[in-house]
Amino acid sequence: METDARIRALGFSERDARTLADHFLDAERRGKHGHGLSRVAWLASLPDLDPQARPERIVDERGYQRWHGRGALGYLTLDAICAAQLADPPDDARIVVADRCFPTGMLGYWARRVASGGLVCALTATSPPRLGHPDGGPKLAGTNPLAIAIPSSDGPPLVADVSMGRVTYGDVLAGRAGDDELVPFGGPQAHKAFALALGLQLLVDSLVGDPGYGAVMLVARPQADPVPALRARAAGTRLPGDA
Amino acid sequence: METDARIRALGFSERDARTLADHFLDAERRGKHGHGLSRVAWLASLPDLDPQARPERIVDERGYQRWHGRGALGYLTLDAICAAQLADPPDDARIVVADRCFPTGMLGYWARRVASGGLVCALTATSPPRLGHPDGGPKLAGTNPLAIAIPSSDGPPLVADVSMGRVTYGDVLAGRAGDDELVPFGGPQAHKAFALALGLQLLVDSLVGDPGYGAVMLVARPQADPVPALRARAAGTRLPGDA
Repeated sequence: METDARIRALGFSERDARTLADHFLDAERRGKHGHGLSRVAWLASLPDLDPQARPERIVDERGYQRWHGRGALGYLTLDAICAAQLADPPDDARIVVADRCFPTGMLGYWARRVASGGLVCALTATSPPRLGHPDGGPKLAGTNPLAIAIPSSDGPPLVADVSMGRVTYGDVLAGRAGDDELVPFGGPQAHKAFALALGLQLLVDSLVGDPGYGAVMLVARPQADPVPALRARAAGTRLPGDA
Repeated sequence: METDARIRALGFSERDARTLADHFLDAERRGKHGHGLSRVAWLASLPDLDPQARPERIVDERGYQRWHGRGALGYLTLDAICAAQLADPPDDARIVVADRCFPTGMLGYWARRVASGGLVCALTATSPPRLGHPDGGPKLAGTNPLAIAIPSSDGPPLVADVSMGRVTYGDVLAGRAGDDELVPFGGPQAHKAFALALGLQLLVDSLVGDPGYGAVMLVARPQADPVPALRARAAGTRLPGDA
């Protein structure tokens, strides 16, 4: 609750402080310290932090929604989007586009939440350009993760959450990695991670209505329950998102 | 036309032979020989090849479609899906699920075609398990590519098309790579490509209605035209899908 109190001191409501604290504490538990408690001081340093801002749903159709952050933190925009999907799931599938949605933290956290409510979720989001082409040139793509979470009848969802960077920007901020290590992952095949980062970025950039960092989510009702059979085949191999 | 004739000799209609030949010849032009002309002999070797089979659209809503291959080649199922999206684009966005859709060839080919018609497209598809966890264990995931194609007002679409394998199965078939090289790409970070392959596989497996190899496509009307500005920033850097 100490974390909640520190966030409330920045002007956030009790509910929003709880949302943010839960995200940061979950990051710490998963060892993703760049997305963890260090972000509280970082929030306090943001010149345009508006703790009263509220995201808005500006298009609401059965298979498509568009949201706008309206100055709210991306965490809180994704929180509102997740809650809305769980409260009113799609008939089959839905694409959700979030304009002005930054920062978004660990995308796996949000995808896991949607999948914990029984829906399939894939989520990507953009961030400042930090990755260049492996052969050189300007930094063109954010680390733009892709998170995919699949509900399972035998326990928690399976969650794949992959950033296209070799290290995270949080690692650089914390001094655990040099800026020169923030490159597409993959070594001699880093052009693949660069292509994924750029493709995901342009997917978001082409779907948002208000230019800026944003997010795109696919939400769907599962037709099948493939995780238990995969776990059986895996025979104990650690699978993505396992603790 | 010689390729068309060889395919027609297998029992395919003139139209389907043209569709298949165009795919194989485009693969050859792009240097993706594993998806190229060698596939004609491979088709001839398939014990259950049914050149008369036709894919069927079994669910058709504004924001969601489900198709079933009904024994047709995945190439021809994706061809029908692409044509249907271009003939009747979504109002905003649409998810298309293809049950029993295999083999699918170069996913970038299909995504490019949809984007050449002005629509944003992301496409993934599953294939036999060939990738294991980098730490060992059974082969659990196909090479499951992700292709993303974005229309551009200044020329052809930008197309990112990334397989999660270090080499392709076509390379192994052709003897250009050993079976032991067919692992997730990424070297010391191969767990990332493995997680993407497994996440994409479960996304498809959870959305298909008839278990088996399938595909999932996102199609959307663009709200923006981000490629020209990206090309300007790239200042001549080669971008994904460039010839």
